Amino acid sequence: MFNERIYNFSAGPSMLPLSVLKQAQKELLNYGGSGMSVMEMSHRSSSFDSIFQNTKAHLRSLMKIPNTHEILFLQGGATTQFSMVPLNLIGPSGKADYALTGNFSAKAYEEAQKFGICTVAASSAAEHYTFIPNQASLQLDSNASYFHYCDNNTIYGTEWNYVPQTGSVPLVCDMSSNILSKPVDVGQYGLIYAGAQKNMAPAGVTVVIISKELVGHALKNTPIMLDYATHVKSDSMYNTPPCWCIYILGLVLQWLESLGGLSAMEAINREKAAILYDYLDESKLFHGTAQKEARSKMNVTFRTADQALDAQFVKEAASSGFSNLKGHRLVGGMRASIYNAMPIQGVRALIEFMAKFEKDHI
Amino acid sequence: MFNERIYNFSAGPSMLPLSVLKQAQKELLNYGGSGMSVMEMSHRSSSFDSIFQNTKAHLRSLMKIPNTHEILFLQGGATTQFSMVPLNLIGPSGKADYALTGNFSAKAYEEAQKFGICTVAASSAAEHYTFIPNQASLQLDSNASYFHYCDNNTIYGTEWNYVPQTGSVPLVCDMSSNILSKPVDVGQYGLIYAGAQKNMAPAGVTVVIISKELVGHALKNTPIMLDYATHVKSDSMYNTPPCWCIYILGLVLQWLESLGGLSAMEAINREKAAILYDYLDESKLFHGTAQKEARSKMNVTFRTADQALDAQFVKEAASSGFSNLKGHRLVGGMRASIYNAMPIQGVRALIEFMAKFEKDHI
Repeated sequence: MFNERIYNFSAGPSMLPLSVLKQAQKELLNYGGSGMSVMEMSHRSSSFDSIFQNTKAHLRSLMKIPNTHEILFLQGGATTQFSMVPLNLIGPSGKADYALTGNFSAKAYEEAQKFGICTVAASSAAEHYTFIPNQASLQLDSNASYFHYCDNNTIYGTEWNYVPQTGSVPLVCDMSSNILSKPVDVGQYGLIYAGAQKNMAPAGVTVVIISKELVGHALKNTPIMLDYATHVKSDSMYNTPPCWCIYILGLVLQWLESLGGLSAMEAINREKAAILYDYLDESKLFHGTAQKEARSKMNVTFRTADQALDAQFVKEAASSGFSNLKGHRLVGGMRASIYNAMPIQGVRALIEFMAKFEKDHI
Repeated sequence: MFNERIYNFSAGPSMLPLSVLKQAQKELLNYGGSGMSVMEMSHRSSSFDSIFQNTKAHLRSLMKIPNTHEILFLQGGATTQFSMVPLNLIGPSGKADYALTGNFSAKAYEEAQKFGICTVAASSAAEHYTFIPNQASLQLDSNASYFHYCDNNTIYGTEWNYVPQTGSVPLVCDMSSNILSKPVDVGQYGLIYAGAQKNMAPAGVTVVIISKELVGHALKNTPIMLDYATHVKSDSMYNTPPCWCIYILGLVLQWLESLGGLSAMEAINREKAAILYDYLDESKLFHGTAQKEARSKMNVTFRTADQALDAQFVKEAASSGFSNLKGHRLVGGMRASIYNAMPIQGVRALIEFMAKFEKDHI
């Protein structure tokens, strides 16, 4: 039982900025003099429309999303996008390229095979997904309808440090675990999607940013809610959207603006990651598991040489208020997820705790 | 600008019990000593697992859901179910029967035609959906894979006052707008689905109650998130569920239990509807639009004989703290949605306001 808030290193859902939570708490019973909670508002009401349009506008401004691209707020998480992407985009050639760099990109590839011919353009599976393939190693099909990759791999703690160049083949990117963590040149992408629960909002809304050119080409008999055209035509209001999550996303975006936007956020994220990796590189007990050039700035995976000691560390950390440091069951070890909302003080406190643990066990 | 909470007659999203909102507000920063908000919890954590399993258990207990049926918490609203139902259930004969009693049942029918042969078993479209077809008029195909109907029609203010008898053909029911408003014999149904935002929780979670026998027969290449089997196998945790909405649903279910369960709730709902319909039947200015035997206890549709006066009424009501009384754009007039969370005091206050308006305009 904690009387105070703790440092939550969960891979997702994960920490939200405290100021966002406090504002949500303050206006929970009566939002802006509407006499009701955001949870109770008709999605067609002027109060909610204002929240919705402001959230979209803040996202467009923060990510500098060009007018060639639409913003959608959908449901079903990134996993639903694993189906929507091929259903909507694979049509032209019936083929798509996939880069496999972790669990979720592999799942996306597996699902897409239901809807067309999918080819592995690159894979780090043989090396337990500890690295990111470089540009030269990508086996690109210039006739593919799109190239799909996952920019940050939460389970393996790796992140692409470059944007794949695929010529005229549209880039499709799963940014679930690093969206809003750094500036992105959205114009380079055909489609970006991200579940909200890591860097944006509570679980329940999926952000899709899609080039208008890619809308309206869904395969025949695509379920209506899985057709991007349905949502573009109705501005994500074909049916009731996940209003509360969109509202919290709007507050998170305003928080990001108050910090100075995505460049400022990136600088903070780089510093948070750097101090933790620096500690790991010096440590005699812990070591990072991802290859250095592929290290994620969002999910820092590490371990000791001893599984029992890993388990002891996770347990002691949890009782000291550093929660969810256990690595994913597929890889074991530890993982510290240090998304946008994790303050640098939290990372510093973790390092201090690790150093003490190291001292006691070396 | 309202300093106090108002009576919100929205058709959905709609009012939540005040005690539920207050509890959510109280524990928003630190749920049960976890040191974090429910919005920040890993869906795999023991804290959230406890919320999730309790919510399921309360729903099973309140609705007396037999062990022959699974409970799923999904995303995408009832509209996604319009696709999931045929994708998963139409297989055996490739045919299904649909009763058309309003806008949403017609949409469900339209969508299902992508996936098989659908037949209109009954329709009240010719009478502007003002009535519900009786049992004798249903044109049933004993070889249909299922029979689909919508139990309460929010736009037209009608509600089935009986459960269709379809022999061995599984009953599929959209209960989005009246689930939890009355006891239901779940064992009679093959599948019940309901978007949460009217009677259960904030928009973003869809409850599906499905007979185990109907799981596992999806059409080939059904998108993974649209296959009920995916969710049954993983207890609705194939990917991150809409945790916050599930948590609020749990609080709403506990509130219903504290009232005495669904029979007690039904008695309250009957009284709320009765006093409003009684007033309408006596009124010289307003009249109800649905046929008497088909009247909904959730959505009371009414109007004056004058569209301009309707508009004036809606406007004056809104500024007096009775919000969202405008009828759906498809039908005009007025609609008072009086779901579970609308207290009888709200209905009484509305009647008083209407009586005063009537006196001023007759």
